[in-house]
Amino acid sequence: MRYSIATIPGDGIGPEVIQETILVLNKVGEIFGHQMDFQEVLAGGIAIDKTGMPLPKETIEICRNSDAVLLGAVGGPKWDNLSGDKRPERALLGLREALGLYANIRPAVLYQALKEASPLRSDIVEKGIDICVVRELTGGIYFGDRGRNKEGKMGESAYDTESYSVGEVERIARSAFEIARKRNRKVTSVDKANVLESSRLWRSVIVELSKDYPDVALDHMYIDNAAMQLIRDPQQFDVIVTTNMFGDILSDEASMITGSIGMLPSASLGEGSLGMYEPIHGSAPDIAGEDKANPIATILSSAMMLRFSFALEEEAKAIENAVMKVLENNYRTGDIISKGMTLVGTKEMGRLILQEL
Amino acid sequence: MRYSIATIPGDGIGPEVIQETILVLNKVGEIFGHQMDFQEVLAGGIAIDKTGMPLPKETIEICRNSDAVLLGAVGGPKWDNLSGDKRPERALLGLREALGLYANIRPAVLYQALKEASPLRSDIVEKGIDICVVRELTGGIYFGDRGRNKEGKMGESAYDTESYSVGEVERIARSAFEIARKRNRKVTSVDKANVLESSRLWRSVIVELSKDYPDVALDHMYIDNAAMQLIRDPQQFDVIVTTNMFGDILSDEASMITGSIGMLPSASLGEGSLGMYEPIHGSAPDIAGEDKANPIATILSSAMMLRFSFALEEEAKAIENAVMKVLENNYRTGDIISKGMTLVGTKEMGRLILQEL
Ligand SMILES: CC(C)[C@H](C(=O)O)[C@@H](O)C(=O)O
Ligand SMILES: CC(C)[C@H](C(=O)O)[C@@H](O)C(=O)O
Repeated sequence: MRYSIATIPGDGIGPEVIQETILVLNKVGEIFGHQMDFQEVLAGGIAIDKTGMPLPKETIEICRNSDAVLLGAVGGPKWDNLSGDKRPERALLGLREALGLYANIRPAVLYQALKEASPLRSDIVEKGIDICVVRELTGGIYFGDRGRNKEGKMGESAYDTESYSVGEVERIARSAFEIARKRNRKVTSVDKANVLESSRLWRSVIVELSKDYPDVALDHMYIDNAAMQLIRDPQQFDVIVTTNMFGDILSDEASMITGSIGMLPSASLGEGSLGMYEPIHGSAPDIAGEDKANPIATILSSAMMLRFSFALEEEAKAIENAVMKVLENNYRTGDIISKGMTLVGTKEMGRLILQEL
Repeated sequence: MRYSIATIPGDGIGPEVIQETILVLNKVGEIFGHQMDFQEVLAGGIAIDKTGMPLPKETIEICRNSDAVLLGAVGGPKWDNLSGDKRPERALLGLREALGLYANIRPAVLYQALKEASPLRSDIVEKGIDICVVRELTGGIYFGDRGRNKEGKMGESAYDTESYSVGEVERIARSAFEIARKRNRKVTSVDKANVLESSRLWRSVIVELSKDYPDVALDHMYIDNAAMQLIRDPQQFDVIVTTNMFGDILSDEASMITGSIGMLPSASLGEGSLGMYEPIHGSAPDIAGEDKANPIATILSSAMMLRFSFALEEEAKAIENAVMKVLENNYRTGDIISKGMTLVGTKEMGRLILQEL
């Protein structure tokens, strides 16, 4: 088979981690007999520098016509003083919206080999962490009406609108239930139904939909409690489904407790098979270009791409197993180094993974 | 001096912890020569049972005419199926609004004696945790316009509005800067200015106001990053100031990392000296009436009351020191028990603290 992949190296360490991932994908293609065609496009800070806009129309068009999008990272201090619509992050929000990628899948996994990196007490992480956060990605307060009102009794004011429709909740909930079926059959829906009307709609739609999934256990948790429970007892979670805003917070918190942000991939999916895949870490401008970045999160993101967009389960597993072997052989990049391990750079880490394939 | 205190025992363990706190306050009054007049009022589930409403008008009136309000806890499974305006939590939201309590002060402190209870790795909490979360309490998405729209292309939808005015941000920021002046002179403002218009206004007002506080360091953090940093390196924070919604999440997360939710007090303040004081823990219906609840959070809340509403610093310190001594003498309630410690009940814990005064 032949697959077209739009790559967005972006900013900071983005180009380096994408580079290693392309090498890995090419090798997988060779082994399993697939042709991968990569087309590099501009987004983020580099796009601002070259075109004046974080997300050129051409980028959207090419991504839309590809089988999948692979993104490194966008943003950096250089563009931090630009305002609103001019910022590199707009590229992310714009791509999610333009491609209709409403389901953000973020596994938070504690790798046994990296157990010590978790900031949690060892007796809490002993039994491992394996949570999948399913975050709604094209609705809620990220995309609702916003603006300013000049005159009020306490001066100018600004507002944003959190809004969810039945259809939006249904489709993200369905994604969560389907994923739970392939895991431990438990969904925790996180909301703030004791305060928000949108949460009350959210909850009732999910309760209704859950009747289609009698084999999956459903429970509900308020966001404030969820932020605590993740730390107190991460084992209680299997799949967490939540809104765009709460998902932004909880997925980052869940990643942090694993202690291995440089390891964690993500997928953003829509109705069809087109998806966008990216590491959850940022552009790390402080180490950009120094061959220090950990390419594993991006390489694992490409495994998610093979699985979700191309339905190549065996190939995805091959990548994941290769990564595990390299970790078991005690190779580490700087972000996950610990006593007794061998420090390697970005390129060497890529090469080691490639070699295990 | 003579002080009038409205007490709201509320539900679950509320009455027990309030009872011990009243004994402590009476003793403090005796020692320092103050008269405390307590008037018990109804709110929460018990108010629903007795009057049909979670927050009777009479309760609001009495609280408004008191010097301070001391609250135990409200809510429980018995009232969980009531909808919206009928729920016990409405009492909290209603009191905050009616009394104009816009500043919620929640210290998250790791007590050396309870270090092992923290879910974080010991090397992270070694140097202690001492964060003060200042949460805006009468604005934002908690109190903005909300509702439903019947017809949309994806079915019915529900919305909530996050809104902040210059005046609202100014006054909460001022509280945060003032508190920071009495602590380590650092304020971290948490927002989501890369997405929300209300956050952009929030940030610009705080930057402007910070010119009045050149002696206090100010930095800004996105909420998703803050949720991670609290776990990774809690030491970096002194005072955190944030919105109602983000504060709900972050203050609970900050409490959890201390490992001692049964120990943490809170204050809700407005323009004048009237304040509402309550433990941050819930009503714990599972142990209600069994003399098992930890009264320390409520007793420490009463110390905050003496400090903030009555300006009785010495008296506040006396209570805090008495609590520390009892902990140093290795007495513990069930929620904070560990090996080698002496288990005591609610009443005995109250008596021990009283005895140390
Ligand atoms: C950069 C920002 C707009 C973005 C978000 O909030 O969605 C990021 O935090 C993420 O989680 O992908
Ligand atoms: C009960 C609930 C409405 C309340 C809130 O969200 O403010 C609670 O979580 C709190 O933090 O006091």
